[in-house]
Amino acid sequence: MLVVTKKDIEKCYSLKECIDAVAEAFKYFSAGKVDVPLRTQIVKKNGRDTFLCMPAFCEEKDAACVKILNMFPNNIEHGLPSINAQVLNIDANTGVVNAIIDGNYLTQLRTGAASGVALKYLARKNCTKGALIGTGAQAATQLEAMLLVRDLAEVLVSDLNFERAQEFASKMQTKLAKYQTKIKAVKTGNEAVRDADIIISVTPSHKPVYDFSNVKKGATICGVGSYQPQMEETPAELVAHADKIYFDAKKAVLAEAGDIIIPLQQGLIDESHLQGEIGKVISGELVGRENDEETIFFKTVGIAAQDLMTAKAIYAKAAVANN
Amino acid sequence: MLVVTKKDIEKCYSLKECIDAVAEAFKYFSAGKVDVPLRTQIVKKNGRDTFLCMPAFCEEKDAACVKILNMFPNNIEHGLPSINAQVLNIDANTGVVNAIIDGNYLTQLRTGAASGVALKYLARKNCTKGALIGTGAQAATQLEAMLLVRDLAEVLVSDLNFERAQEFASKMQTKLAKYQTKIKAVKTGNEAVRDADIIISVTPSHKPVYDFSNVKKGATICGVGSYQPQMEETPAELVAHADKIYFDAKKAVLAEAGDIIIPLQQGLIDESHLQGEIGKVISGELVGRENDEETIFFKTVGIAAQDLMTAKAIYAKAAVANN
Repeated sequence: MLVVTKKDIEKCYSLKECIDAVAEAFKYFSAGKVDVPLRTQIVKKNGRDTFLCMPAFCEEKDAACVKILNMFPNNIEHGLPSINAQVLNIDANTGVVNAIIDGNYLTQLRTGAASGVALKYLARKNCTKGALIGTGAQAATQLEAMLLVRDLAEVLVSDLNFERAQEFASKMQTKLAKYQTKIKAVKTGNEAVRDADIIISVTPSHKPVYDFSNVKKGATICGVGSYQPQMEETPAELVAHADKIYFDAKKAVLAEAGDIIIPLQQGLIDESHLQGEIGKVISGELVGRENDEETIFFKTVGIAAQDLMTAKAIYAKAAVANN
Repeated sequence: MLVVTKKDIEKCYSLKECIDAVAEAFKYFSAGKVDVPLRTQIVKKNGRDTFLCMPAFCEEKDAACVKILNMFPNNIEHGLPSINAQVLNIDANTGVVNAIIDGNYLTQLRTGAASGVALKYLARKNCTKGALIGTGAQAATQLEAMLLVRDLAEVLVSDLNFERAQEFASKMQTKLAKYQTKIKAVKTGNEAVRDADIIISVTPSHKPVYDFSNVKKGATICGVGSYQPQMEETPAELVAHADKIYFDAKKAVLAEAGDIIIPLQQGLIDESHLQGEIGKVISGELVGRENDEETIFFKTVGIAAQDLMTAKAIYAKAAVANN
């Protein structure tokens, strides 16, 4: 039994590799080749603390895993993360559990990688400016994903809390120095997105975090927050005016993502606006960007297939590193 | 993250302690205080290899766990166990996964402990002779459970394969020497059960492994195999003539246990023969044995509550041992 901590992952596995794993995940998922039973959920009597258990399996890729994700929002009061996740990697040929992997960091990687995959396939080639809104636990991998797939001169970062945005930008400027991109905090979402070729928002906001009027034609926007029906970080006007809308998993997005559900309910879009799953763009079944003028919105809520392929890939590297 | 192997468990946790944990498990389960969502199951295309995932939670006992149990019958051809299980123990106050525990050995303990609990509450006080039929992976803890709860002079052991029974008896005679019980292999189930006060069968048999005519009046019989509707190790005649029938979980037994399902289907018993759950005997809601003449049958299929309370108890001991 390999115990793979965040440090172990950092030593042997990169976000660049995770982008490849998640592209495979999306492709196999959209081809109906990933088996994901309904996740089991236990909620404590306080109606707040939740235990989630999510198995996944892909026969063709010999990949099997179980992700345990427990959400205890009040943990923060005791100095603990509100989400605690672990992923068990399983040898699909023997049923042996061969590793328990830090699920918090794995989730950050695969969530960043989802935007990386989307931008790789959907963003204009000649992007120079990025915007990142939200600087929480998922932000670092989102930022690096942009830099990995496009050669950006500058990324502007904003957060409700400007000091936090400054700290984040300064820390990431050092950590991601090799990309030679200027990372700068700004005070508002509107300042961040103005003139940006790539926009990623990753917030739990219930109202849009910037205005559509500031979004440049031809931009590619990734909505990473908005994982509940009442959450809406992306302006509905943007969703309505986007030339194309893609997502990770249609069923999940229609069930969970306010960014899509709210414009649908308001009649600003109908299902014909939804191009389809990024996995079908990757497999070539669906066309992606057709010219530099298209404004494209990608919505991700995160799917178990991402955990599955990422866990398998991490295990392969960690097992070698451990020898 | 504590990785708790079989060796670690053996060092810090005993079957005697597990009998207490499982008695609690049965009591809380029968009081409706254990939350067990439907287990998720993924079956490979070969229709044989199966991944199972079983979360459980008991708010009153602050206990939470997830058991992963993968059944790959053909593993044996490659020198691997056909069942591979792990149990994640979760801190129910924070959602933090604090241990991954060898689920194969934990299962052996809690399955042995189920018989231990049943015999403690249901067997006559003055038992002297035991019978054990089946010497597979679950047999050792079944045997020790008998010896823990009743002071037996002799246990006769049988198996389809007599040599295996001899090896098992000889090994256990040494391992369980402190109980000062004679453990002896015999050639047939009928030889084993004749005159026994306690009978435990733990086989995957599809036909009875002894005859009812050889069962002494006043005996207590634990049926531990027969975990599928077509499996029947206990003679239907015994089930029909037992003065009382108890079990771990009514719903599970009626869905899974051939030992109960087959006599019901044959009209040999009806549901009025089923006294109820052992958990209610433990809590005092239900009467147990009333005199030394009653022949009592206890059927167990195993429930997640046993894993839950056992994992919590093992973690408590292992965490101390690890300091």
